[in-house]
Amino acid sequence: MESIRVYAPATVANVACGFDIFGFAVNHPGDEVVLTKSSTPGIRINEITGDDGRLPKDVLKNTAGIAIMKYLEHIGQPDQGFELSLHKDMPLGSGLGSSAASAVAGVFAANELMGKPLSQKELLPFAMEGERVACGSAHADNVGPSLLGGFVIIRSYDPLDIIQIPTPSDLYASIVHPQIEVNTKDARRILEREITLHKTITQMGNVAGLVAGLLLPDYQLIGRSLVDVIIEPARAILIPQFDVVKAAALEAGALGCSISGSGPSLFALSKGKETATRVAAAMAAGFHQVGIGTEEYVSEINQQGPMIR
Amino acid sequence: MESIRVYAPATVANVACGFDIFGFAVNHPGDEVVLTKSSTPGIRINEITGDDGRLPKDVLKNTAGIAIMKYLEHIGQPDQGFELSLHKDMPLGSGLGSSAASAVAGVFAANELMGKPLSQKELLPFAMEGERVACGSAHADNVGPSLLGGFVIIRSYDPLDIIQIPTPSDLYASIVHPQIEVNTKDARRILEREITLHKTITQMGNVAGLVAGLLLPDYQLIGRSLVDVIIEPARAILIPQFDVVKAAALEAGALGCSISGSGPSLFALSKGKETATRVAAAMAAGFHQVGIGTEEYVSEINQQGPMIR
Repeated sequence: MESIRVYAPATVANVACGFDIFGFAVNHPGDEVVLTKSSTPGIRINEITGDDGRLPKDVLKNTAGIAIMKYLEHIGQPDQGFELSLHKDMPLGSGLGSSAASAVAGVFAANELMGKPLSQKELLPFAMEGERVACGSAHADNVGPSLLGGFVIIRSYDPLDIIQIPTPSDLYASIVHPQIEVNTKDARRILEREITLHKTITQMGNVAGLVAGLLLPDYQLIGRSLVDVIIEPARAILIPQFDVVKAAALEAGALGCSISGSGPSLFALSKGKETATRVAAAMAAGFHQVGIGTEEYVSEINQQGPMIR
Repeated sequence: MESIRVYAPATVANVACGFDIFGFAVNHPGDEVVLTKSSTPGIRINEITGDDGRLPKDVLKNTAGIAIMKYLEHIGQPDQGFELSLHKDMPLGSGLGSSAASAVAGVFAANELMGKPLSQKELLPFAMEGERVACGSAHADNVGPSLLGGFVIIRSYDPLDIIQIPTPSDLYASIVHPQIEVNTKDARRILEREITLHKTITQMGNVAGLVAGLLLPDYQLIGRSLVDVIIEPARAILIPQFDVVKAAALEAGALGCSISGSGPSLFALSKGKETATRVAAAMAAGFHQVGIGTEEYVSEINQQGPMIR
């Protein structure tokens, strides 16, 4: 095999209460990479579409490029040549794990073309290196679910311990991206560095409740647990209409609603596709009220991670 | 029915990572209450055994007395008379939920004698009032599992939201009580009031991992998640030999080991009764090294809460 086309899913990180430890993947949107082996050493990024010319073609500055490079070094083939095209099928800087999806698609494609020397889970550290380029630190809460699919717990970063848990079959995500931008680095900077013991306990209760709700399963418990007393209050300020949109989601029947990753996209979880569709429309309307355009997505929880197309 | 004998189980609260939100019940030790209806209004505590004369017979200062009183007020029968005897079959001030077990046994017995106007779960607020007498605040992480059995998550205190989750059938607790005392109020006072975001994230990861480990089930994940970076480091200082005893538990095959409630008892969780028995002996030996006497208990996770005897 000399060429491959891989699609990696967008992801919702944090999932309300689980800052840096929870994430899940959706079936769409996502990113597509076309990777082709080359006899000329080095990785060349020939084409990037869907980014309005904003992403760097310099391999050392591109999340997919870095991820593939680190992977090739690890498997002892640093001189393997690759031609890469990247097709963004999702908004940049949206809080939907855009950089993670590119890194995952790239490293997954490379591993396929190299004859799969590593398992899917073993690709994680290289995709995380791609994330480091994009947001300054190697987080796994987008890369983990994009690579593995499903709902993912990052129990520990050192050593890395990632657990994938099943989700109820009728659980749907509504995602609304308002056409404004929040820089991930800024969104991290405004967080408090010290949390009261009381808030920590509240957050832990919701973390425990969400995992239990997903596994039992218990949709109402999932809903009661989608509460974030630490991150959401700080970041909501950066998102116009946040309170209106969240209230609209709950009013339309969502189990819960919060910020996707560092925003500005919001996500909601609902039981059933019909409710999730209604919820997405209600959320979008909340932004439209003040003239902010949106993209909306409704999806089941993606269960497989990257797909060869 | 005019008289009833009820046994309520001891409990391990916090369970390493879950300060104030996790607890589980064991089959023994526990507390026994004998409650008898009386035509004379008011609650009289006639006998308390197993406490070396340390517990108050004044109803307003006794956890079982308060719990029953609050219960009778709630059901609109404040003048119902009761004679109560309390038999402590567990050490006081041990971190095993001694006051909670008394309150649970008392209120459960009263509800039975009154014809069960309330469900078992509805008794919780009254047992919590008993806890308030003992430790200054109305915690649910001992009362909850003692009343409901099993492994319990307190997702929220306001409103109270308690979730019972199943535990793997081969999960055993080893509990070792060193014959020293730690006052619960002191043990709370030494805790930091502010937690770094980094520690909060680590703790949340372990909370999520423990719930997932219990429900999947995955014994190794349970073990990896029995880590407490917030409370244990502060409280371990109050327990002589803590590091030695914990290391001995892990060496003997425990999945994990930490402080039960506010201590000084330590607990470990293991797969299988044989391992749990070996672990308890190893832990006890760690205290004996320095001349501290112990009581040891090995038990499955109790699944039913109070029992009529």
